[in-house]
Amino acid sequence: MSAPEYGRAFTLWRASAPEWQAYTRHEFVEALRRGDLPRENFLHYLRQDYVFLIHFARAWALAAAKAGTLAEMQAASATVQALVHEEMPLHVQICAGEGINEAALEATEEAPANLAYTRYVLDAGYSGDFLDLMAALAPCVLGYGEIGARLAGSGGPYAAWIDTYAGPEYQALCHDVGALIDGALVHRLGPDWASLPRAGQLSKRFATATRLEVGFWQMGLDGP
Amino acid sequence: MSAPEYGRAFTLWRASAPEWQAYTRHEFVEALRRGDLPRENFLHYLRQDYVFLIHFARAWALAAAKAGTLAEMQAASATVQALVHEEMPLHVQICAGEGINEAALEATEEAPANLAYTRYVLDAGYSGDFLDLMAALAPCVLGYGEIGARLAGSGGPYAAWIDTYAGPEYQALCHDVGALIDGALVHRLGPDWASLPRAGQLSKRFATATRLEVGFWQMGLDGP
Amino acid sequence: MSAPEYGRAFTLWRASAPEWQAYTRHEFVEALRRGDLPRENFLHYLRQDYVFLIHFARAWALAAAKAGTLAEMQAASATVQALVHEEMPLHVQICAGEGINEAALEATEEAPANLAYTRYVLDAGYSGDFLDLMAALAPCVLGYGEIGARLAGSGGPYAAWIDTYAGPEYQALCHDVGALIDGALVHRLGPDWASLPRAGQLSKRFATATRLEVGFWQMGLDGP
Amino acid sequence: MSAPEYGRAFTLWRASAPEWQAYTRHEFVEALRRGDLPRENFLHYLRQDYVFLIHFARAWALAAAKAGTLAEMQAASATVQALVHEEMPLHVQICAGEGINEAALEATEEAPANLAYTRYVLDAGYSGDFLDLMAALAPCVLGYGEIGARLAGSGGPYAAWIDTYAGPEYQALCHDVGALIDGALVHRLGPDWASLPRAGQLSKRFATATRLEVGFWQMGLDGP
Repeated sequence: MSAPEYGRAFTLWRASAPEWQAYTRHEFVEALRRGDLPRENFLHYLRQDYVFLIHFARAWALAAAKAGTLAEMQAASATVQALVHEEMPLHVQICAGEGINEAALEATEEAPANLAYTRYVLDAGYSGDFLDLMAALAPCVLGYGEIGARLAGSGGPYAAWIDTYAGPEYQALCHDVGALIDGALVHRLGPDWASLPRAGQLSKRFATATRLEVGFWQMGLDGP
Repeated sequence: MSAPEYGRAFTLWRASAPEWQAYTRHEFVEALRRGDLPRENFLHYLRQDYVFLIHFARAWALAAAKAGTLAEMQAASATVQALVHEEMPLHVQICAGEGINEAALEATEEAPANLAYTRYVLDAGYSGDFLDLMAALAPCVLGYGEIGARLAGSGGPYAAWIDTYAGPEYQALCHDVGALIDGALVHRLGPDWASLPRAGQLSKRFATATRLEVGFWQMGLDGP
Repeated sequence: MSAPEYGRAFTLWRASAPEWQAYTRHEFVEALRRGDLPRENFLHYLRQDYVFLIHFARAWALAAAKAGTLAEMQAASATVQALVHEEMPLHVQICAGEGINEAALEATEEAPANLAYTRYVLDAGYSGDFLDLMAALAPCVLGYGEIGARLAGSGGPYAAWIDTYAGPEYQALCHDVGALIDGALVHRLGPDWASLPRAGQLSKRFATATRLEVGFWQMGLDGP
Repeated sequence: MSAPEYGRAFTLWRASAPEWQAYTRHEFVEALRRGDLPRENFLHYLRQDYVFLIHFARAWALAAAKAGTLAEMQAASATVQALVHEEMPLHVQICAGEGINEAALEATEEAPANLAYTRYVLDAGYSGDFLDLMAALAPCVLGYGEIGARLAGSGGPYAAWIDTYAGPEYQALCHDVGALIDGALVHRLGPDWASLPRAGQLSKRFATATRLEVGFWQMGLDGP
């Protein structure tokens, strides 16, 4: 499958991340597609994903704090707002439907693979700049888009999950984030940014974050 | 005038900040009240206030990134969202009504008094924690509430400005922010936080930020 | 074995971290003690430890930036200085003696367990305050001291490593860092800090960092 | 006078900062040169400079935390170490010689001009990256070098102050910092960095920091 068209940076970074296929075609993803992922593994993933969302929202909030233009700030702010006022309450509701109440969710012990990815992203943002943060966030945002697009229509017990990421709303978000990243690169580094040392450094950020996403799926597959 | 009832921390911090009256009863404020502030001083203030809002929004975004609970994150996120998607566009519109177009706004050179306050707040947040950030933000949020409440009904050419801060919406925000701060203190330091060394450190943050707010009004009064 | 006397905070935090024994008596440590850890595992650990030291030094530098007193700043600065001008060159030299040249060291791919611990510490510092940073750094600094003290005199092929941490210089550092932490707590939270909610939050930081240290040893044991 | 040879970035940034002459030839500086600066103004400056050094050291510590290479980290760490273990104790001693004891120094209320510059630098570092921090620090480090070189041999009551910055040790530091900045730019942006949008953004950082340095001298001239 060719790369989804989420922009220039994504296309380059994706092509140079050694573990991109290991991430987007991870056995956890394949089991979601086939529908034979054990329920307890999915629930384990859901609980961890709730904790993940907290730190993911914090990272987008940091992006708003480190933005270079009003448009960047507005985009990042809208993402945080959607996460904390929509995604997270929705997640609580989905988990409730699965028999995991809010207290259980809150009590989830964050798995090392979860800590590794989220704190890598946050440190990339704090220690680097807006671009470092975007490069570290991209594998999650855009990788889920690519996975959703590939799994679209698979049906089965995980169809709702698949449809969320395959759906037009999430796909539009991916195009927006891709454009945000491309714009941020040009705004700081000019149109030929891909030839600068900075491009290699950002590409490495993306690759490391991708590697940590592999670990996240593996955590789901290994189960509680 | 007694302190507005924006909560326990505000009441304590306000009482111990030596320049609180110099800030809330600054000659710039009095001139707004009487309606004799020269128009060009008001426009100078408006332009600087636009730049201020950018960094103020960044500071609230940082608060979301450094929040300790989902409720804190939601409150901070909602504030950023309101600032970048409502307040700032509104500000652009008000300035346009005064003959300052968006390009002129964007080209505003940030005054030293503006830099001093906003960067003090941001560094308080980055170098300290969520509480340091709240203590540094409070004089602005809550001081404008107190000024608005005192000037309510003054009429005159600056009635629209006064009404914004005197109005129920802004006053409700002040109560919410006061409660956010009180809750954050108890969540971290317990109910007897006022007796801890940390309370003195936070009170000093509030006092320093108040001092820088005096400088902000003075900048408005000195004019362009 | 009773806890080493590295101060009040360490004693409390150590006692409440569920995985403290799993960390300080990890099979990797036992194999170092018995001397039967395969050489290639040790070399794998050494290479990762070099990358670790870079981020560890960054975390101490952040501590200097976030310090609340000149004494805290001096202590943190001296630690960074020792790390980047002594420990790291020494580490390069030790690795060279083991046949790992500097280029190989620089090319080390950071293991997920390494990323997890170091970025957790850095984010604790950036998102929290000086105390959060200290609580996240403590399991490493003081845990190595406890391990060194327990393994002292074990002899065998890893005697040099053991002696580094068992020796008076490192043990003195542990007492200093323990005192730095105790002082920082009292300076901010007063003498009764242990009864505040903040104490529980810091204890949780320490416990999470301890859990990630278990992962670091496990990475060494699993080998390259 | 031509620009001192502190490197390529300094030469460019200096040439494009509108207030560079207003800073380096400020009346405070001229009064130091002529020797007719009132003693109380100098003492006011010294006290503020002590507070300045604390935040200046914090900024260099942050640079160590955000460094991209070991060499950058070592350079930043050595600067922090010199500041907190040599410069600041020396400053305390000089002040003592002028009748300002350590308690008085510690009790100094930070002037707004001081807050403005130091917090601008720190926020540049936290919100931006290593380069933003360097661009904001450069006017201070290198400007003092340029002033010292120009005032060398002026004699008079402020000869000791002048000699500190005119002397070979400080001038060597300026060359080192200039080289550090040039190297950091090439490492991230390549040899043609000056043509990128980022160059304009950094130049603006330098210009804003220069403007705030003018305010710092003015504070000294205005006196306590």
